[in-house]
Amino acid sequence: MNFTAVNFQEKLENFSEHWSPKIVAQMNDIQFKLVKIQGEFVWHSHAETDEVFIVLAGEMTIELRNGRISLQPGELFVVPKGVTHKPVAENECHILLVEPASLVNTGDADSNLTAPNDVWI
Amino acid sequence: MNFTAVNFQEKLENFSEHWSPKIVAQMNDIQFKLVKIQGEFVWHSHAETDEVFIVLAGEMTIELRNGRISLQPGELFVVPKGVTHKPVAENECHILLVEPASLVNTGDADSNLTAPNDVWI
Repeated sequence: MNFTAVNFQEKLENFSEHWSPKIVAQMNDIQFKLVKIQGEFVWHSHAETDEVFIVLAGEMTIELRNGRISLQPGELFVVPKGVTHKPVAENECHILLVEPASLVNTGDADSNLTAPNDVWI
Repeated sequence: MNFTAVNFQEKLENFSEHWSPKIVAQMNDIQFKLVKIQGEFVWHSHAETDEVFIVLAGEMTIELRNGRISLQPGELFVVPKGVTHKPVAENECHILLVEPASLVNTGDADSNLTAPNDVWI
C-alpha cells in the first residue's frame, strides 16, 4: 500500500502538456487526475458517468448546450452523465478531475485531442 | 439538474461544528463532503471502501497503526479500505472528503462522534 500523500503542486511540476490527464490517486474504481488546460476542448459527453471538475489554479469555463459555468480556484462542478459539454480556458488553468477509471477524455467525440487514459505520475 | 458551481469557501462559511461532514456534491454514487476538524477523532476503519482526504486549509495528520501521514493544503491521501486510521488536527483544519454515499464517518467504531451521513449544504 502506498502511504504517501499526493501533493498537487509537486505533481503539476512534472508535466506541461495541455489536455492530457495524469492520474495521481485511485479510490476504489474512481481516479483523481491532474490536467493542465488552455484553449478550447472538443464538445463531447460521457453516456455512462458523471464527471467532476475542481479548479486548482486559473480560471475555466464549461460550456453547455444551454449555458456556461465559470469556475475559479476552489470551485467544483459536476457534469451530469450524458450532458454535452466543452471545457475552455483562455489562460492556462490547472484542474483536478474525479471520474471512473478508464474514462476517455473526449468521451463520444472523434477528436485528435483524445489522450491516453492510463498515465500515472 | 443543478448547473451551479460549488464554491468550497462559501459552503464552509455555512457551518462551524467539527467532525460533522456536509455533502456539497455527488458524482454517480460518490459524494464530496466538507468537514471542519479539530482535536482527535476516533480510531476506525471502513471495511467496504477506500476514503479520500483532501486538505483545503490548515494541517492535519492521519494516524495509522504503523505510521502517520501529515497533510497540508493541496495534498490528498487515500485511506485504503480496511485500514484503521485516526484523523487528528491540532488547530482547525478544513478538508474535502470523497467517499461513497451513505458512508458513516466513524466506520466500525462505537463512538459519540458518529455524525449524520445525509446532510447537504
